[in-house]
Amino acid sequence: MEFDLIARIRERAASRADVVVGIGDDAAILSMRPGKQLVVAMDTLNAGVHFPEETAPADIGWKALAVNLSDLAAMAATPAWCTLSLSLPQPDAAWLDGFLDGFLELAAHYGVALVGGDTTRGPLSVCVTAHGFVEPRGALLRSAACVGDDVWITGTLGDAAAALRQWRSGEPVATALRARLDRPTPRVAAGRALAGIVHACIDISDGLLADLGHVCRASRVGADIEVDTLPTSAALQAAFDAEVRRELQAAGGDDYELCFTAPKTARLAVVETMHACDVAATRVGRITADAGRIQLQDAAGVQWSSPCAGYVHFEG
Amino acid sequence: MEFDLIARIRERAASRADVVVGIGDDAAILSMRPGKQLVVAMDTLNAGVHFPEETAPADIGWKALAVNLSDLAAMAATPAWCTLSLSLPQPDAAWLDGFLDGFLELAAHYGVALVGGDTTRGPLSVCVTAHGFVEPRGALLRSAACVGDDVWITGTLGDAAAALRQWRSGEPVATALRARLDRPTPRVAAGRALAGIVHACIDISDGLLADLGHVCRASRVGADIEVDTLPTSAALQAAFDAEVRRELQAAGGDDYELCFTAPKTARLAVVETMHACDVAATRVGRITADAGRIQLQDAAGVQWSSPCAGYVHFEG
Repeated sequence: MEFDLIARIRERAASRADVVVGIGDDAAILSMRPGKQLVVAMDTLNAGVHFPEETAPADIGWKALAVNLSDLAAMAATPAWCTLSLSLPQPDAAWLDGFLDGFLELAAHYGVALVGGDTTRGPLSVCVTAHGFVEPRGALLRSAACVGDDVWITGTLGDAAAALRQWRSGEPVATALRARLDRPTPRVAAGRALAGIVHACIDISDGLLADLGHVCRASRVGADIEVDTLPTSAALQAAFDAEVRRELQAAGGDDYELCFTAPKTARLAVVETMHACDVAATRVGRITADAGRIQLQDAAGVQWSSPCAGYVHFEG
Repeated sequence: MEFDLIARIRERAASRADVVVGIGDDAAILSMRPGKQLVVAMDTLNAGVHFPEETAPADIGWKALAVNLSDLAAMAATPAWCTLSLSLPQPDAAWLDGFLDGFLELAAHYGVALVGGDTTRGPLSVCVTAHGFVEPRGALLRSAACVGDDVWITGTLGDAAAALRQWRSGEPVATALRARLDRPTPRVAAGRALAGIVHACIDISDGLLADLGHVCRASRVGADIEVDTLPTSAALQAAFDAEVRRELQAAGGDDYELCFTAPKTARLAVVETMHACDVAATRVGRITADAGRIQLQDAAGVQWSSPCAGYVHFEG
């Protein structure tokens, strides 16, 4: 099984000038860019855990790469190469072709070469390792948030979780919401543009509360978030009332937006930089000295606590 | 689940001077060695496919890293870093500790730092990406075999497949054979030492016939193998008769020995180099112009064909 599938993948994968040996040997050989540091992210999506089994293969392919490019984006890295380990219950050329449609479409968009990996028999699972570059000391870290920083969010929050909520309840899923769940946009250009301007950065995969919590722990700070300022899409606005929206936006994951912190003096630079990237950025709160504590309040200043502590991507 | 398990892994993982950011951010940041090329291998082991479910966690950990280091060895690369994606049916700290015992023991032996990855819920599966270095044009490729080359094998062949055969038939499994199946030795020092001396190289994961077949296809050559010269351990000798041994050695996988080709003029250099690495190396045949054809013959020159075309690592 393995060799035929690999041949099929190899035929379709594009290369880059810095790929010395790509798919087809025991390992890939890659030319590093002099003076750059290597950035490596690795994330797995399991069927029935991270996506419903019936998700279109092309969407699984897209998302498996997207979540990894999102990790590189949150480091302000420039993506270059990826490897793919694909476990399939049985060899299925049609499924693989669909999967590659989505995976390679996104790879081509960011100029990422698929350079190796393996295919094995097993329950449907997709593991991707993504490689990129940063300048030395050019990466955005979770540990760099400072007391007094603004907290910013790119794009809008809650759409992916809203799609999952609708899907779970058996309702029809709004197309715009479903697209956010199945085909997240890694904020690669935005992440790179923010390097040198902002302090800490993380991508929101597990939900704002959970992921901002990682930033707060790593930076030994806290955060006050104004829940009514969380950026909301028209589709989410139309689909759920304010209370549910808040919950989806604060605790729902899978949006793959960036959450970053920046000094007040950087506000203009952030707005201009994000405008140049054609990405919305919204201030939603500030970093406090109250280490480890994230406090949410509404427009009237009333404290609000999410009824949903952790986000579950999907459980079949 | 993910965060606690990651904290546990992070506590135990060793670092290296060239790890700028290890476990705990969105991605790892690594300092490349100037003038070197990056080598990347990625392999997954699935429970019930690549190992019996009841395999000790420490052995699963060892093997998951070993098969990746073996890929680097076959490229003559020096291992440096790895990432680990671990899917577990449920969080299990005791299992994880056992797994890390084996994984980190092998990592420490080769000075490999575990720098990132993820943990997810799903059927037991271990995906590892291993990173190493080579000098430009210093790697050993599958495509470099030349007509007239000797074919060499490190160590002994057939032990891992023999263990699996005993295990499947319900017999007691000989300890020495079981150790070869559960704790393969990646031939890292041997692979590095062979660079500049030999032509093509591959590691034997799927069996000599299958893997030498990859070399022959990539190099557009064939090979004649003398089955009676295949290196045999005392444990294998004691466990099976000649006919079964041949089959296990020609078609059985999971040994993770190196198979390499070298010109006749390099014989002395190969022997001395392998001696310095304390690794046995045996000449087992030669590369022919008969592209794509691997012919096996016994000591009397009688052609022999394996009844077992492909190797199945394990199927529950």
